Amino acid sequence: MDRESERPAQQTARTGVDDPATILPQPPELTAEDTEFLRELGQQLRVDSIRCSTAAGSGHPTSSMSAADIIAVLLARHLVYDWSLPDNPNNDHLIYSKGHASPLCYSMFKAAGAITDQELLSFRKFGSRLEGHPTPAIPWVDVATGSLGQGLPIAVGVALAGKYLDKLPFHVWALCGDSELAEGSIWEAIDKAGYYRLSNLTAIFDVNRLGQRGETEYGWNLEIYRQRAEAFGAFPILVDGHDVEQIDAALSRSRRAADKPTVIIARTVKGRGFSEIENKNGWHGRALPPDMAERAIAELGGVRHITIQTLKPEPAEDPHGGGPPEGTQVVLPAYEVGSKVATRKAYGDALVALGVLPDVVAMDGEVSNSTHADEFASAYPDRYFEMFISEQMLIAAAVAMSVRRYRPFASTFAAFFSRAYDFIRMAAISQANIRLAGSHAGVEIGQDGPSQMGLEDLAAMRAIHGSTVLYPSDANSAARLTGAMAETDGIVFLRTTRGAYPVLYSPDEDFPVGGAKVIRSSGRDQVALIGAGVTLHNCLAAAERLATEGVSARVIDLYSVKPVDEGVLREASAVTRGNFVVAEDHYPQGGLGAAVMEALAGDASPPRVAHCAVRDLPTSGKPEELMEAAGISAEDIAGAARRLLETARFEPAGSARPGGSGGASPSTGGY
Amino acid sequence: MDRESERPAQQTARTGVDDPATILPQPPELTAEDTEFLRELGQQLRVDSIRCSTAAGSGHPTSSMSAADIIAVLLARHLVYDWSLPDNPNNDHLIYSKGHASPLCYSMFKAAGAITDQELLSFRKFGSRLEGHPTPAIPWVDVATGSLGQGLPIAVGVALAGKYLDKLPFHVWALCGDSELAEGSIWEAIDKAGYYRLSNLTAIFDVNRLGQRGETEYGWNLEIYRQRAEAFGAFPILVDGHDVEQIDAALSRSRRAADKPTVIIARTVKGRGFSEIENKNGWHGRALPPDMAERAIAELGGVRHITIQTLKPEPAEDPHGGGPPEGTQVVLPAYEVGSKVATRKAYGDALVALGVLPDVVAMDGEVSNSTHADEFASAYPDRYFEMFISEQMLIAAAVAMSVRRYRPFASTFAAFFSRAYDFIRMAAISQANIRLAGSHAGVEIGQDGPSQMGLEDLAAMRAIHGSTVLYPSDANSAARLTGAMAETDGIVFLRTTRGAYPVLYSPDEDFPVGGAKVIRSSGRDQVALIGAGVTLHNCLAAAERLATEGVSARVIDLYSVKPVDEGVLREASAVTRGNFVVAEDHYPQGGLGAAVMEALAGDASPPRVAHCAVRDLPTSGKPEELMEAAGISAEDIAGAARRLLETARFEPAGSARPGGSGGASPSTGGY
Repeated sequence: MDRESERPAQQTARTGVDDPATILPQPPELTAEDTEFLRELGQQLRVDSIRCSTAAGSGHPTSSMSAADIIAVLLARHLVYDWSLPDNPNNDHLIYSKGHASPLCYSMFKAAGAITDQELLSFRKFGSRLEGHPTPAIPWVDVATGSLGQGLPIAVGVALAGKYLDKLPFHVWALCGDSELAEGSIWEAIDKAGYYRLSNLTAIFDVNRLGQRGETEYGWNLEIYRQRAEAFGAFPILVDGHDVEQIDAALSRSRRAADKPTVIIARTVKGRGFSEIENKNGWHGRALPPDMAERAIAELGGVRHITIQTLKPEPAEDPHGGGPPEGTQVVLPAYEVGSKVATRKAYGDALVALGVLPDVVAMDGEVSNSTHADEFASAYPDRYFEMFISEQMLIAAAVAMSVRRYRPFASTFAAFFSRAYDFIRMAAISQANIRLAGSHAGVEIGQDGPSQMGLEDLAAMRAIHGSTVLYPSDANSAARLTGAMAETDGIVFLRTTRGAYPVLYSPDEDFPVGGAKVIRSSGRDQVALIGAGVTLHNCLAAAERLATEGVSARVIDLYSVKPVDEGVLREASAVTRGNFVVAEDHYPQGGLGAAVMEALAGDASPPRVAHCAVRDLPTSGKPEELMEAAGISAEDIAGAARRLLETARFEPAGSARPGGSGGASPSTGGY
Repeated sequence: MDRESERPAQQTARTGVDDPATILPQPPELTAEDTEFLRELGQQLRVDSIRCSTAAGSGHPTSSMSAADIIAVLLARHLVYDWSLPDNPNNDHLIYSKGHASPLCYSMFKAAGAITDQELLSFRKFGSRLEGHPTPAIPWVDVATGSLGQGLPIAVGVALAGKYLDKLPFHVWALCGDSELAEGSIWEAIDKAGYYRLSNLTAIFDVNRLGQRGETEYGWNLEIYRQRAEAFGAFPILVDGHDVEQIDAALSRSRRAADKPTVIIARTVKGRGFSEIENKNGWHGRALPPDMAERAIAELGGVRHITIQTLKPEPAEDPHGGGPPEGTQVVLPAYEVGSKVATRKAYGDALVALGVLPDVVAMDGEVSNSTHADEFASAYPDRYFEMFISEQMLIAAAVAMSVRRYRPFASTFAAFFSRAYDFIRMAAISQANIRLAGSHAGVEIGQDGPSQMGLEDLAAMRAIHGSTVLYPSDANSAARLTGAMAETDGIVFLRTTRGAYPVLYSPDEDFPVGGAKVIRSSGRDQVALIGAGVTLHNCLAAAERLATEGVSARVIDLYSVKPVDEGVLREASAVTRGNFVVAEDHYPQGGLGAAVMEALAGDASPPRVAHCAVRDLPTSGKPEELMEAAGISAEDIAGAARRLLETARFEPAGSARPGGSGGASPSTGGY
């Protein structure tokens, strides 16, 4: 059975006011015809979820079928969205937090007329934008989901932007699975939605009772979810998730909510509509084999091709308009060479300077007086969001700001970004543009001890797809790099240092992302000492010591850890005959050392690298004591250089090292 | 004022029964003398918290002062602990989830007679075990805390072990700050405590209203915390945290709880007892200057040296007794060479085999039918814990099992361990022994798309202090390495593959941790192809192709990514004149390639490495399509080898590459 029909949009007015609860007219009561139509649409979404996953040979049809009626009612009567203009600032946002319900998401796109039936059937095939879990490769998808418990936190961030920054009446909807309600991040999100009174947010819990390998913690005990949602500051509504009238009433109510976010807790049946698998365990993440699919489609009433005209928003001006007001100039702070300033302080100062750009926003995880984000909070309180100690929500909010095309800067201790590593990983898949500033790097922090020391952060952040990793050594470069962050897309991480160290560079020195500075050189250097952050200062001191011994050391400031400046490194390798010492306040794996090695490993003659890094578990103590204990002090660096040159000195006659005289270019390799 | 006194223990009987609620006598009512004594003890804890932090010049005295009365009552009347025998299996556990209250923790040790006043004053000094935040360098500390929101989840895990495995009547206490209640992990923990009915757990919320940079989200709104604790399955008790009678009653009640964990929500005052800073913002994480400290100590009644005899537990037999029953033999599974078996399946089979060891326990994050941990769950249901989709709690439970000296194996998708990266980081500082199995590595998983692909996991796990990282390529090595995990301390990560690939090794081949296998070699190899997991199979296929072209390629199975076998690599570098191709199903940073480079970077002549890794953001598709797109297929590896040899072939006459004839030893470097 194939049907073609089209349904006109209901004329629900949308205007650009702050509180939709006071203005939106009640949508018309559902007629019997409406009800029947919504049921049909729900069946179509089920049939299409089965069809596309069976065509793919994998996917999650049963998790789609449980939520099909909810999505049918939302799409036909409540979602305000112009499918031809996904960038309309007044469009609602709908995030599939249960990203594995991608068959439903894509079937919804078909029902909205956004994709063809043919494209729907390309699901999960190589080259199709309809991937296993939704990603922003699709214009109507805000963020990648599929790591559970992340869609709702990001939805909360989008609602935060809508209420406090855009001040537009769009509504944010998040469809959640019941399994993901076990993730703490879900409760960080609802807590923040309650705290910030996000009445423009509706979370829908699709409680189908069954997880991947069996029953969820609480099955169909909706009462538990009700209590939790309420305790965390939301207004809960319980519905039968297959009763379109109940769903419609709940969605109407939530769109009109005031002062609180809504959580619709829907009792649903996994695999609903196909009696052979309904409410049965063992059908998570499995496409129906073709014969079963055929029976299922028949039981569901056959293939349909209903197309819905969703409600369209009023046209709206881009909240970011034509960019900053004319004449706006970012005046980055400048520090006197030789004065002692912490790079975290320079970050805070520079962030305030960036505040003249109206799309720059900031957020912090309750440590803004340590990261110095508090300076921005004071200067631009309307564009600062306190996320308290919930780093997952901190990153989610930043990603959401990127969705709304703000330029977010999120800060906490470098160590504590590890709490949100999965969110940062997913942000890269979402192609979000977020800036992260992690303070208190390495053993240099001293007395607080290892729990507060970022010692894995360079490795973790470098491994994020498309990331940029910056690590300044002085206040002027930190300020310049903070400025550069605003202009850099992707996941940008800035590592700052707790202590105050001498300013090395003049304020007008440039620090392009991807560059490196040769900060000391004689032209006839025997060894290159490579550092960043506090170890650059130790490298400079080591070079002084070596100079008194007649050894000329080049010192390189590797402030851009990723991308790394291969040219500067390659030239240093050529001049020093490949004698490198890399010193970093980080564990030995995957950090500055690896960045240097990876950059030149493919060269004909890669450099020889003596590596000073933190090898033992650190303790508490003074910064100098801990750097000495870790073997990253000036004396350790000088010692490593001496040993390198000693062993190099014993070269057998006639075995000149290739690459030692300019042969370090990869295409003209010396062997 | 200095006082010396000693207080006899109250004779509260402890016996080895399951439910203390039915057996423990009510402790005697507090007399006026008791009350006065407890107040004195609280003042001592405050004074000592000030003294040690002022001596250190840093630390968190005010966060200690708010909880001093709670700890005084707990120590004097409720904690059952033999300070001379911290390994007594019947000892209670007390975890400072608010690890920054370390001054209070150490002052408590002094009051218990466990450390001297002199040692207390070594707080935060280099070489002292009294670090800025507690670590298990101290025998009475179970785990490192200081990253907020982690102590309570671990306490939940310890209670889980106590109730379901040890079946001992010890009680678990966790002292939490109010700021950390914003962490989702706190709610994952209370949820699991409720779900598993952990009546042997008491969480104490020290609600002092002030966080690091200002007021917490909810200040003194204890009612919000009450609702949340109740909704998450705990029994809440509200008290004035400075009223020793109320505290005593609450602790008594919680020790006798049945069926539910208790959450004591205590209204307290930060800096309590010193009028100049009481309840004032701006005093978080600041030691009092000496003059203020003097005034504070005077106001608090002077220095005291009360020593408490805490209640001692009955002696108990070690639940792990003399190890496994005599004759117990682990018989690891064996697979036929050439048959196709997924390494994740071999992990599951081997885990069942390890089940004969009674201290092996397992847990999973609701994907046990994917990781194959479900096999263990079926075979040993009493020693399997379903953590549902809450990876932070998954790791916390594993760490807790290590605290109780079990051998935990925790599994989920490799990508989703990133959700608990901060917990893994802290587990290393806790010197916990936990085994992690991450399945679904890399683009090889295919259609599910990038959200489910572990592509940063090797970098992240390698950077964990003292970690071991294993990545088998076939089922027999996976089984052997799973067996080896049981015998390996620290954080051990095993990366498994989704698809089934041919078994390469005989079942009796050994796979020592830290080893590598030369799986193909002619003795005159021109290039070494280095892979692990799926890319080893691609390396083998590439070697076949190269052989038809007359190129002899050595193939190395780098199954032990950390520690890495430097010897095997160094020999390969010598034989191949440093021509390496490393292929990995991982992003290019910090993974297999970096492991190889870091191992030999200090050698006189490091190898030249062509690196095949996943550089673009992957999509959905078939595994072979995605591996080709990523450039890690057999053809890509062969191509990289050809290019390497081509450029090497154009060597200028007379510039023989040093190290090419055995000169690769670092101490006799060829230049």
